[in-house]
Amino acid sequence: MTVLRKELFHLPEGVIYLDGNSLGPLPVNAEARAREVMTREWGQDLIRAWNTADWISLPKKVGDRIGRIIGAPEGSVATGDTLSIKVYQALAAALKMNPDRRAILSDSGNFPTDLYMAQGLIGTIDKGYELRTPAPEDVVDAITDEVAVVMLTHVDYRTGRMHDMAAITRAAHAVGAVMIWDLAHSAGAVPVDMVGSGAEFAVGCTYKYLNGGPGAPAFIYARPDIVETVQPALAGWMGHEEPFAMDPDYRPAMSTERLRVGTPPILQLSVLDAALDAWDGLSMDDVRAASIRLSDLFIAEVERLCPTLTLASPRDAGVRGSQVSFRFEHGYSAIQALIDRGVIGDFRAPDIMRFGFAPLYLDEGDIRAAADHVATVINDSLWNDPKYQTRSRVT
Amino acid sequence: MTVLRKELFHLPEGVIYLDGNSLGPLPVNAEARAREVMTREWGQDLIRAWNTADWISLPKKVGDRIGRIIGAPEGSVATGDTLSIKVYQALAAALKMNPDRRAILSDSGNFPTDLYMAQGLIGTIDKGYELRTPAPEDVVDAITDEVAVVMLTHVDYRTGRMHDMAAITRAAHAVGAVMIWDLAHSAGAVPVDMVGSGAEFAVGCTYKYLNGGPGAPAFIYARPDIVETVQPALAGWMGHEEPFAMDPDYRPAMSTERLRVGTPPILQLSVLDAALDAWDGLSMDDVRAASIRLSDLFIAEVERLCPTLTLASPRDAGVRGSQVSFRFEHGYSAIQALIDRGVIGDFRAPDIMRFGFAPLYLDEGDIRAAADHVATVINDSLWNDPKYQTRSRVT
Repeated sequence: MTVLRKELFHLPEGVIYLDGNSLGPLPVNAEARAREVMTREWGQDLIRAWNTADWISLPKKVGDRIGRIIGAPEGSVATGDTLSIKVYQALAAALKMNPDRRAILSDSGNFPTDLYMAQGLIGTIDKGYELRTPAPEDVVDAITDEVAVVMLTHVDYRTGRMHDMAAITRAAHAVGAVMIWDLAHSAGAVPVDMVGSGAEFAVGCTYKYLNGGPGAPAFIYARPDIVETVQPALAGWMGHEEPFAMDPDYRPAMSTERLRVGTPPILQLSVLDAALDAWDGLSMDDVRAASIRLSDLFIAEVERLCPTLTLASPRDAGVRGSQVSFRFEHGYSAIQALIDRGVIGDFRAPDIMRFGFAPLYLDEGDIRAAADHVATVINDSLWNDPKYQTRSRVT
Repeated sequence: MTVLRKELFHLPEGVIYLDGNSLGPLPVNAEARAREVMTREWGQDLIRAWNTADWISLPKKVGDRIGRIIGAPEGSVATGDTLSIKVYQALAAALKMNPDRRAILSDSGNFPTDLYMAQGLIGTIDKGYELRTPAPEDVVDAITDEVAVVMLTHVDYRTGRMHDMAAITRAAHAVGAVMIWDLAHSAGAVPVDMVGSGAEFAVGCTYKYLNGGPGAPAFIYARPDIVETVQPALAGWMGHEEPFAMDPDYRPAMSTERLRVGTPPILQLSVLDAALDAWDGLSMDDVRAASIRLSDLFIAEVERLCPTLTLASPRDAGVRGSQVSFRFEHGYSAIQALIDRGVIGDFRAPDIMRFGFAPLYLDEGDIRAAADHVATVINDSLWNDPKYQTRSRVT
C-alpha cells in the first residue's frame, strides 16, 4: 500500500527535502493546531485550558501515539524534555538496577550528546563508573558481566548503519546488563518492536521522522513490568503520583508517568500531536518497504551518475536505516551547492553528505531529480564556488 | 510612570485575570510570532532556519532579555528545559562546590518540585545527603556550617511571603554555603538584583509573570565569576564548547551556555521572545509600585466587604510578592464560583484562594470589580452551589 501523503505537508516549491532525518517538514495539521492552541486555548481559556482543552492529558496521549509507532503498549511511553534529558533518566535508572557494576557500554558511533550525558552522570555520582565506547562492530564482544548497562543508538546518525536490536538486547540480558535504545533515527523511519525486543528502556526525539517541529519534545519508554521499580533521578512534580496534592515528599507515579519531570511544553506537544495525525492508519512495514525502494534507487542513481562519491552507508538495506550517506572530501561545500539548487541534505563532519528518506512526502521522481542534482554538483565541481566555502554556525 | 499596557495582551471579554502568577495571558506579539515561526521559518526555510532565522542564537538572546528583568548581566542567563531541570542542575553544581558537606537546606514552604528534585538528586548520588526543610521563618537559624547549599524560592507560591534575598545570601556565604534562588514568582513580579545579591545561582520559569505561554522554557543564572568552575551534571551537546564538532568528549562552554542541555524548544522560545517585548522600556521599580497599589487596594476592599476571609499573605507589602492569598474553608468551591463570574484566580490546597497582580494588564477598576465579586460569592454563599463541589484534575 502506498504511504505517500504529500498533501499532509507544506513542502516549499522547488525544494526536494532530504533532511527530514534532521528536522521534518511542517504538517498541515500542525500549523492549524498551533493557531488553535495560541488563539483559542491559551488566548481565550487561559489557565482553564488545562481542563477545557485537556492539556493535562496531552503528554500521555502523545506518548501513546508514539508508542503505536515503536511497538510499545499504551501507557508505556512518557513525553517531554529533550532526548539528552531522557538519556540521563534511563541511564541513571539503569545504574540503580545494577548497583554492583561500574561499566556503561556504548559505541564510538553514538551521537555525542548520549555520550556526554553519560559522562555528566558519571561525574555527578562520582563512584568510579566508566564509559566504554568500542567501535560499533565490536559492541557485542564488549558485552561482559562488568557491564551495568548497554546504551546504543539503533541507527547511526552519520552512516545509517543499524544495530540488531533483538540480538544485542539478548546479549545484554545474557550477562545481566540493562538495555537502553536511542531511537532518534528509528522512530517513524524503520519498524521498531519495543515489546519484542525485551529492552528495558528506549528514548527518542520527535523532530526528525515524526515531524514534530524544531525542538519538539522527546520521549522515553520503560518496560511495563519494571516501571514500578524504576528510581527516577529527575524526580519532578509531573512524575509524582498526585502532582496537585503538593505533597512535600516525592512519591513516583505507578506508571511510566514517573519519568515525566516538569510542566509539559503544551504548545510544542500540541504541534507534535497534530503532526502525528500523518501516521494514522499507516503500517511501519509499508513505510519501510517504500523507504528501502527510495534509498536503493538513490544509491543506484548516484553511483551510476557520479562514481567519485563513496557510499558510507551499508549497501545492504537490511542493516541500514532510512538515510543514505556518501563520503566526499568537499562534502560541506557540495551540500551547500545542493541546497542552493533546492536539494536539501546535510553535512556531518568530517566528510559525510547525508540524505534522509521519508516516504510520506517523497516519491521516485524526487529521488531521481535529487540524484541528477548531486551528479551535476559533483561532476561539474559546482561545490568549488567560493560562496560555498564559508561555514555557517550550524553545519 | 504607568506600566499599564493592556493593548499588548489578548484579554477575553468579561474576564478579570488574576491568575497571571500561574499562566500569563497571550501577548499580541506572541500570537503573531508563532504564526511566523510555523509558517515561514519552519514551513518555508525548514532546516535552514537554524541559520536564516537565527534559531541558533535564540536561547542566548532570550536569556539576555530575562537577565535585564532580574538584574543579571549579559551572557549570565541560559534558557531551556523546565524549572525542575534547572533546579537539579543548580543543586548538582552546588554540591560539587562544597564536596565535604552533606546538608541541603530549603524550607517547608518551597514549591514541591524543588524539594522533589533535591530528593531525586540525593538518591542518585547516594552518599548520605540530607534535605532539611524548616519553616520559612526558621531558615536563617538553620544555616550552619554543615550546609552545602541553601535553596529557597524567593516568593512563596501559596502565601506570597517574600524572603530577604540579600540577607539570606549573606548568611549562606558567611558559613561557606552556596546560594540558589528560585525566582518562579519573582521574575517580572518584583525587582530582583541578581548581581547585588551575590548568589551563585538562580532559576525560574517564564509562563507566569513573563507571559511565555503554557510550558514555556525555564532559565538559569550562574554568577559570572564562578561559571567556568561549574561542573554540569546534565552535560548535553548544546552546553558543549563546540556542539557541531561532534567531539566524543564533553568540553563545557566557557560561559553560562554550559548549563544548556539538549536541542532548544524553538517554537516556545520564539513565543517567549515575543512575549518579552512587553517589558521593553519598563522599570521594575515602576512595576513594583503599581503591583503594591493594586495588591493593597485588593486587600483593603476584600477585608472591608468580606470580613469572613482571613488574609494568608503578609500585610506588609515590603515582604509580599505580587500576589494576595486568603484562607477560606470552602476556597476550592469559591474559586470555581468566581471563575464562573469571570474573575479568574486559583486554589492551592488545603484552603488558599490565590490572586495574582500583573500591573501590565490590570488596573484599579479591575481590582475593585474583582473584590466586589469575591464579596458576592462569599457573602451570598454562591460557593455552596453543588456544581462547584466537583474537583477537576488540575486544581
